[in-house]
Amino acid sequence: MRVGFVGLGSMGRPMAGALLRARHEVIAWNRTPGRAEALRGEGAAVAATPAEAARAGVAISMLADDAAADAATGGPDGIRAGLPQGGVHVSMSTLAPDTIERLARDHAAAGQALIAAPVFGRPEAAAAAKLFVVAAGPRDAVDRVRPLLDAMGQRTFLLGEEPAQASLVKLAGNFMLTAAIEALAESLALVEKAGIDRAAFLEVLTETLFAAPAYRTYGRVLLEDRFSPPGFRLPLGAKDNRLWLAAGERHAVPLPLASLVRDRMLAALARGWGDLDWSSFGRIAAEDAALPRRSTTLAERGP
Amino acid sequence: MRVGFVGLGSMGRPMAGALLRARHEVIAWNRTPGRAEALRGEGAAVAATPAEAARAGVAISMLADDAAADAATGGPDGIRAGLPQGGVHVSMSTLAPDTIERLARDHAAAGQALIAAPVFGRPEAAAAAKLFVVAAGPRDAVDRVRPLLDAMGQRTFLLGEEPAQASLVKLAGNFMLTAAIEALAESLALVEKAGIDRAAFLEVLTETLFAAPAYRTYGRVLLEDRFSPPGFRLPLGAKDNRLWLAAGERHAVPLPLASLVRDRMLAALARGWGDLDWSSFGRIAAEDAALPRRSTTLAERGP
Amino acid sequence: MRVGFVGLGSMGRPMAGALLRARHEVIAWNRTPGRAEALRGEGAAVAATPAEAARAGVAISMLADDAAADAATGGPDGIRAGLPQGGVHVSMSTLAPDTIERLARDHAAAGQALIAAPVFGRPEAAAAAKLFVVAAGPRDAVDRVRPLLDAMGQRTFLLGEEPAQASLVKLAGNFMLTAAIEALAESLALVEKAGIDRAAFLEVLTETLFAAPAYRTYGRVLLEDRFSPPGFRLPLGAKDNRLWLAAGERHAVPLPLASLVRDRMLAALARGWGDLDWSSFGRIAAEDAALPRRSTTLAERGP
Amino acid sequence: MRVGFVGLGSMGRPMAGALLRARHEVIAWNRTPGRAEALRGEGAAVAATPAEAARAGVAISMLADDAAADAATGGPDGIRAGLPQGGVHVSMSTLAPDTIERLARDHAAAGQALIAAPVFGRPEAAAAAKLFVVAAGPRDAVDRVRPLLDAMGQRTFLLGEEPAQASLVKLAGNFMLTAAIEALAESLALVEKAGIDRAAFLEVLTETLFAAPAYRTYGRVLLEDRFSPPGFRLPLGAKDNRLWLAAGERHAVPLPLASLVRDRMLAALARGWGDLDWSSFGRIAAEDAALPRRSTTLAERGP
Repeated sequence: MRVGFVGLGSMGRPMAGALLRARHEVIAWNRTPGRAEALRGEGAAVAATPAEAARAGVAISMLADDAAADAATGGPDGIRAGLPQGGVHVSMSTLAPDTIERLARDHAAAGQALIAAPVFGRPEAAAAAKLFVVAAGPRDAVDRVRPLLDAMGQRTFLLGEEPAQASLVKLAGNFMLTAAIEALAESLALVEKAGIDRAAFLEVLTETLFAAPAYRTYGRVLLEDRFSPPGFRLPLGAKDNRLWLAAGERHAVPLPLASLVRDRMLAALARGWGDLDWSSFGRIAAEDAALPRRSTTLAERGP
Repeated sequence: MRVGFVGLGSMGRPMAGALLRARHEVIAWNRTPGRAEALRGEGAAVAATPAEAARAGVAISMLADDAAADAATGGPDGIRAGLPQGGVHVSMSTLAPDTIERLARDHAAAGQALIAAPVFGRPEAAAAAKLFVVAAGPRDAVDRVRPLLDAMGQRTFLLGEEPAQASLVKLAGNFMLTAAIEALAESLALVEKAGIDRAAFLEVLTETLFAAPAYRTYGRVLLEDRFSPPGFRLPLGAKDNRLWLAAGERHAVPLPLASLVRDRMLAALARGWGDLDWSSFGRIAAEDAALPRRSTTLAERGP
Repeated sequence: MRVGFVGLGSMGRPMAGALLRARHEVIAWNRTPGRAEALRGEGAAVAATPAEAARAGVAISMLADDAAADAATGGPDGIRAGLPQGGVHVSMSTLAPDTIERLARDHAAAGQALIAAPVFGRPEAAAAAKLFVVAAGPRDAVDRVRPLLDAMGQRTFLLGEEPAQASLVKLAGNFMLTAAIEALAESLALVEKAGIDRAAFLEVLTETLFAAPAYRTYGRVLLEDRFSPPGFRLPLGAKDNRLWLAAGERHAVPLPLASLVRDRMLAALARGWGDLDWSSFGRIAAEDAALPRRSTTLAERGP
Repeated sequence: MRVGFVGLGSMGRPMAGALLRARHEVIAWNRTPGRAEALRGEGAAVAATPAEAARAGVAISMLADDAAADAATGGPDGIRAGLPQGGVHVSMSTLAPDTIERLARDHAAAGQALIAAPVFGRPEAAAAAKLFVVAAGPRDAVDRVRPLLDAMGQRTFLLGEEPAQASLVKLAGNFMLTAAIEALAESLALVEKAGIDRAAFLEVLTETLFAAPAYRTYGRVLLEDRFSPPGFRLPLGAKDNRLWLAAGERHAVPLPLASLVRDRMLAALARGWGDLDWSSFGRIAAEDAALPRRSTTLAERGP
């Protein structure tokens, strides 16, 4: 299938690569053009603007945040301008539900469809086409792009026709991860002070009730305070937490565990850890218990 | 191996059964004798006192709480009185680390060994000999009883020579479960108010990042407010939470997520839900969001 | 002094009245003109637009929220358009620090000064000219309007030249009130369940360590669940809480007590209490303890 | 009136002094006898045991904790042994409600009465006879000792006939203080990072809505991180917090604000601040915001 691909960051690049390997025809665009050129070697064409990429009739976007998504979608050079009537924009970034709703309205007004299809998985999973994709949008549009989604992930979950719902589910997943990180962090702090072998403790958890990727991945990270290089930077994690809390506000749902994570993240940001992995907020439980740091990356950086 | 088995409640009964099926010789005791008699049909002998059961040289205890463990261990009819010098008491109940330390001291003074070997798993897992066992105690004593532990569980984790550490790891595991329940509960409340299909949402979680028994089990429970019959009653869960917080106090480790769970459990107990499953505290997130109850078992029962 | 007064709500009306009694010349404007007409009897002139009121050279605004303040300040009929060069706009509403910063920039660009001068006190205090005024802005502008501020309040506190700082101090004061309400609410719930006379308990507090207006006022409210009629509506309180948390985010300051209040307020809003006094979130502590409601205004209203 | 006085610590000493100045006849006892001898100069007699002091017919005790109160009350040398039938023990320490209930039962069995009469106020207030006394116990016994209570405090509040209720009210008062400290601490951290003059901010609060001793005292302490010398040591504050939480558990009352304070106190204790004033937990809000320490007493002391 012919598809425009907008945004070649640490996630977008391997996702576009997976499409090429599945023999789709990719017209790529990136804000800094060097990354698009690099994809040419794998068979991609390079577009000068998002609009040009979107002329393919289907455009996938994978961008850092709401502002970048807005910039690449609107305006004379944006996806909306280039997409033909009946075209489909598949937004795979983690965006605010409100932003998704606005984009969906604008595309609908232009006779186009918006699908929100955020993913779970880190860059390695993207490279292996092992992402999990959560998609929501108009049924026929989803059917049309389904082969593309399946080419990038190991499984596609369909959530219904409201794109903003996929966005909220993605935020929920990230919230669940932060809850697991905080639980691990508190437990590790206490077992450490009680003189228990932390690695043995973690093995008990991750081989029994918590034999899940989330616990294995972050358990290892917390065991060694290995927050650098970041897989997902703390300020982005804090943004997703903020969006989740805002959704709670909109629907009048108290979220005390998410509030706790919020304050942990702010304590980490105050220490200057904005360039570390988002899981570095888990270190705050250990700070509160006055436990020694295991990594020099945790030196405080000033405000 | 010849082994006394003290305590035939909903967990102890199937555990003793697993020992019998593995061709161990079981001398059983229970406070209300009917339950021991019932085990006779599976090949067990019945003792009149814990002391009599303990004369086997190895005694396993599986009791409801610290008071029951104390009562069955001390005194002229207790395990300690019956156990020969060099004998081993394997305490598999979830007890306070302090209680374990005291029991270990008393057994040591009598020339006996105490092993703490709490388990993860519900009665069904006990019946299928699929428990996870976390054992700590003197190395040679552990080696000696290892065949018994392996006969009851699918895997035995060894934690070192301090019995109280196994107790703390068990409490940590229960804490981690409560954290997962709270995270699920908050997420389910918000996705429900946002109009998302809760079952579909849960499927996304439990088939991707959270593909672990803890999330599948409690996800289903929360989906339908199915807190009765209880697998593990709320007051017992509240007791474990209290012990975990007390351990945090002893070692000067703040545990805000455990504190949150504490207050959730009290809110559930205040509503009169003391006869429901411990996961019923997860319902408080839905109450706070003013969501309708899905089960009549949640009617408030007065103080 | 000649002064335009923009916004005659439950606070603005008595504040303008206080200016008139102090023999200032007031040109009043209100969105719904009836309220301005009513002030004519006390000696005020009535303006057709905020701009017309602002031609007095000094304009005071007292509006419900940021949107109302923006609407009354900008545009061809707004305060900025009417205020002469060198004129002063005294914003006495509780606005977001960001909004204050933006208004200050825009006025400065027009050769005008903005003073933020939010107040502590309820309508009764405004009527008695007993407000506390917290003012920040360019020194000479503050000096010029000082007689006006002093006419409306019992004391004016000067905070420096950054108007947004007065706004933040006002938010801090409101946060401190919510903390006192939550503390009172938890205490009252526990002493009630312990069988202690709540009124006697409250007397002990408010005649000893907490002999302050905040505790006396809200103690009485909580004693009887008397949340209606509202002195300050819950959604407005929730807005101020949100602004305070946002300031914490901007400056990387974790605010767990404010987060707790946030979730309490959402629990109250979920119960449909949006038309009650903001202190009704204090009722959630009693709900969590399953205590009977003392007032029919607390019936749940649905989402 | 003739009265035994048991416990001459930093509070008991000035309280006994106030009784002497009011011309009561004091027979004093202290665990380390030097402190009792020192009181001789002010006119006190010195007893060799609490029992001897209690022979006066009325005995006041002011001791550090429940263990000290138990030790001085029971046994052959204790207050109960010395007090004649019909005698009155006035326990003015801050004890657990459970302890008070037990002491009351034991005294009743001996034909004696127990009054709980804990106080609000620091040593300076005790020296000036300006304490606030909260008394509960059998009416006639309270009437009898009323002149003594009035001689030590500026006001006596009567709470009814259940001594444990006075104990709970005292714990409630201490909880309210911790809530005020946390609220001040969070506010001060945020206004500091926002560049606002903290002293000016504090003046606004304590001259308006929060013109109460609690806020003035602890506001000044937090302004300068002046936690040493301690007026009331952190471990004692943590004990009272624990008792308050335990009362919440007993009556099924969630206390999230008290739980927050608990975790703050543990974070302070983990930093080794056990010899500082209890308000030093307020410093944790500033630590979380990565604000510089204002006092060298805050150096971390290791576990």
